[in-house]
Order: sequence, then C-alpha cells, then structure tokens
Amino acid sequence: MELWFTEKQTPVFGITAKIRETLVTEQTEFQDLAMLDTEEFGRMLVLDGMVMTTIKDEFVYHEMVAHPALFTHPNPKRVLVVGGGDGGVIREVIKHPEVEQAVLVEIDGKVIEYSKKYLPEIAGGLDNPRVDVQVADGYMHIIESKNQYDVIMVDSTEPVGPAAPLFERGFYQGIYEALKEDGIFVAQTDNPWFKADLIQKVNKDVKEIFPIVRVYGANIPTYPSGLWTFTLGSKVHDPLQVDESKIPELDTKYYTPRLHKAAFVLPKFVDDLVK
Amino acid sequence: MELWFTEKQTPVFGITAKIRETLVTEQTEFQDLAMLDTEEFGRMLVLDGMVMTTIKDEFVYHEMVAHPALFTHPNPKRVLVVGGGDGGVIREVIKHPEVEQAVLVEIDGKVIEYSKKYLPEIAGGLDNPRVDVQVADGYMHIIESKNQYDVIMVDSTEPVGPAAPLFERGFYQGIYEALKEDGIFVAQTDNPWFKADLIQKVNKDVKEIFPIVRVYGANIPTYPSGLWTFTLGSKVHDPLQVDESKIPELDTKYYTPRLHKAAFVLPKFVDDLVK
Repeated sequence: MELWFTEKQTPVFGITAKIRETLVTEQTEFQDLAMLDTEEFGRMLVLDGMVMTTIKDEFVYHEMVAHPALFTHPNPKRVLVVGGGDGGVIREVIKHPEVEQAVLVEIDGKVIEYSKKYLPEIAGGLDNPRVDVQVADGYMHIIESKNQYDVIMVDSTEPVGPAAPLFERGFYQGIYEALKEDGIFVAQTDNPWFKADLIQKVNKDVKEIFPIVRVYGANIPTYPSGLWTFTLGSKVHDPLQVDESKIPELDTKYYTPRLHKAAFVLPKFVDDLVK
Repeated sequence: MELWFTEKQTPVFGITAKIRETLVTEQTEFQDLAMLDTEEFGRMLVLDGMVMTTIKDEFVYHEMVAHPALFTHPNPKRVLVVGGGDGGVIREVIKHPEVEQAVLVEIDGKVIEYSKKYLPEIAGGLDNPRVDVQVADGYMHIIESKNQYDVIMVDSTEPVGPAAPLFERGFYQGIYEALKEDGIFVAQTDNPWFKADLIQKVNKDVKEIFPIVRVYGANIPTYPSGLWTFTLGSKVHDPLQVDESKIPELDTKYYTPRLHKAAFVLPKFVDDLVK
C-alpha cells in the first residue's frame, strides 16, 4: 500500500508526497497537527493541512526570515519571534552573537512539543539559555509590549485559523509600538501567484505605519508556487543600504551576503504588486 | 467527476492539477503529447508526463531563456532556438529589433501544430517573417552549423527521451563551433533540489569549452521545486559586466533590467554546485 499526502494549495492545485510513516495526527486546542515522514522531504510538520516545514527545505524559510533583518539592524540585542514553535527561526537568530535575548511566543504548545520530539535538527535552539520560550498569544504579547524589541519576526501560519489576526493592520501598529526607536520587523507574506491580494494589502497597511518597507523573496519548494515573499518594515535602517562587504559569512545554506540585496530584486509582476 | 493530472516530479513527490478538459492526448513520433485545460494554470502542454508550459506561468521561462543572453550580446542578429516548438522563446526573441533572423529547430512537428492551435498566446511569433521554423533534429543542425549564430538557446525537455543528446559534452562543443566569434549560448538546466548532479555535470562540461560560464535562476511554479536554473556560456561577453542602466525596458512580466544581474546571485547551496 502506498500512502500519499496531498496539500491543496489552492482549491484546484496541490502538491503530493509519498509518506513512509504518519508519526502524529492530533487536533490541538488551536489546529490540526500532523507530523509525517515523507520520502522526498523527510519529516514534515503539517498544520491545518498546510505544510509548515520539512527537514529537506526548512533552511530556506528559517534563514530568510532571520538574517536579512538581523544584518540590517546594527545592534540587535532583543529579538521577538511570534509563532515559529518549530524553533527554526530561533536557531538562526542565535547564530548572531550580539543577540542577548530571543523571546519566542507560540500560541500552540503542541507545536513546540512535537517539534522537539520529531524535528530536533530544527528545534534544538529552543533550549539555548539566551532563548525565552513562552506559550502564549502572540497578538496579545505584541499589544502589551512597548519599546521592547530591536527586531520582531512574525513566523505565522496562513491568514486562516489562529494566525488570522496577525495579518491585520492593527497588529502592524502594535508591532511598531513594541519596537524600539530604530526597530525592524519582518513577516512572511505568502506567495504572489495565488495570494497577490494579500501581499498588496499587507504592503499597503505596513506602508501606512513604517517609513521603510521592503519586500523580498526566496524559493521554498514545499510552499505554494515555490516563491515565498517576506515583508520588512523598518523605522530607520534600510536593508538596501547595508554594506554587503561587511556582512560576516555565517553557517548557512541559502542566505549569503551577496544575496542580501539580490533577494529584494523582485520579478516584475511581484514588483508591480508592491510599488 | 473530478479529473486531476498528477506529474510525479520525482518518484515520490509531485504536483496535481484539476483539469477542465483534455484537449489532446497523442503518441507522436517522438513522445507522448497532451494538451490539458487546467483550472489553476489554464492550458498546459505536457510531454512524456512532464509539464512543459502553461498559460499562467509560461512568461517566466520564456523571458528568462531569451532576455539575459540577448541583453548581454551587443548586437544579436542571428539567433537559433533548439527545441521550443511551443514558440514562447521565439515570441520573446523577436521583441529585440536588432534580431534579423531567428531560426527554430524543433524535432517534433506535432508540438508546433498543437501549440499553434491551442496556445496561440504563446505560439503567435512563429508566423513572424523574421522567424524560420524548421522541423528537424536540433542536434544535427548544431553539428552541421559553423560560425553561424550570435546567440543559441537550448529550450529542451528533460534529459530523457528525445532531448537526452542535448545534455552531452559533444553537443556543447558543437554549439561553440556553431556560434560566431563572440557568440553566447544558454540552456535550461533543470532544478537544484532534485537534479543537483545534472547542474554540476553541465557546468563542468561547459566550463571546459567556454571561457565565461554563468548560472542563473527563476521561479516557475509548475516546474519541479519552483526554482529553475539556466546555464549561459559565452566566448567574450559577460552578463555580469552589462550596464543595467542601458538595458531598455521591454514589455515583460518577469525579467527587468534590475533583475538582469540579480538573477545570477544564487542561493548558497546552488552556488556551491557550480563554483
């Protein structure tokens, strides 16, 4: 018998992956959670039917959430990750020695629990002494924080289910206030092929709040269309003004200093969404 | 009843698309040919079970085969396209007014016939008076041509079936000889997630023949992994030395003058394959 997992990325298109083993299927307090072992991509975390991360391609998303913002801020000491319970973004954040504290606020403790158990390559950084893991509502954490963080990263699921409030204008206003005076935030903002409207809406909302707004992309094979976008909002520091020659080489598989600015050069149809 | 077409991009991973209608399924002299009308991507040409092009995302591949090479060569008058019977690359080539003649050599006349019938948005340029369409073996055409072309573009299927010889070292040597003294060639070279070996092998072969070899990428949702690579070999002109400010704006949806060099900045794991 062959078992295949299919994610309908749209109602009429999807990806399908042969699975070796179903490790977990559980309805948590917040969402359907599955941990699958796939033949092509290795272990895979699935929330509400959507692929969140896989062993084979997770490095792209996690590096590209963390490093562009952290190499744009001149001295990121306090970092907040909203969501991201698998720990992948945290693993990248703590590669930056100047980060004194990284706070992770994940609403669903089960994501942390199963990631630690089944995805240790990704979740290992959650036990680092510089990391403060909180199982709590990221939206409320943002609203209650004022002038606290140098960098805030929003590593959310799609804007359905528990993450829906994380794509609202009020949330971005809260982020602005939770950041220090030269703070930077970055959020994953889905793909331009099937979710162009979302990218446009977020871009418009963030531009009303932050003086510097930049969008960049990265290739993630298990995410819809293979092209993922990230929206960065900044009070002072511009990622495009960074001197790439001064970015140190990190232990990465996707991000490089040369890619720091190149990732912001978008295909024309994407550029047209956000200019 | 719902009909879905599934392409196994690897033996254990694939994409699946809901179809409205099956327009053609035919065993030609060279391959299995299907023309499907899909809900997400519109009409889709499938050869030997592999998606070749779709109405929704075809512009990426066709623009990115044609424009980087044509904007690197200072005066491309004679251009050869090997394969590419759907006509999409030709459509982009003839956007360059300095091209006096574009020769298309496609081995399978049925690809041309059905593309003209079902994909007129893509195939329209095949009837342009500057275009010479030949139904013939591209490999033989290359071997028999000496000092003929300014730019040669290899728009082939995968290295199985009729296109297998187009990935051999001898073919690249033939291309070198078919090019004029400052000629440039470009070939599609598959994706780095599932076909890293192929990219490495082509890169090694081409570097033994051409003094300038560059690899660039583009996002194509219906191609495996969503990240496609292109290998460019050049006798004199370097795409990275082009003055982007002098590239005219063309009517494109993916390529832009700013992307001309940025497309060559590869993710680290891809860069590591070709350096």
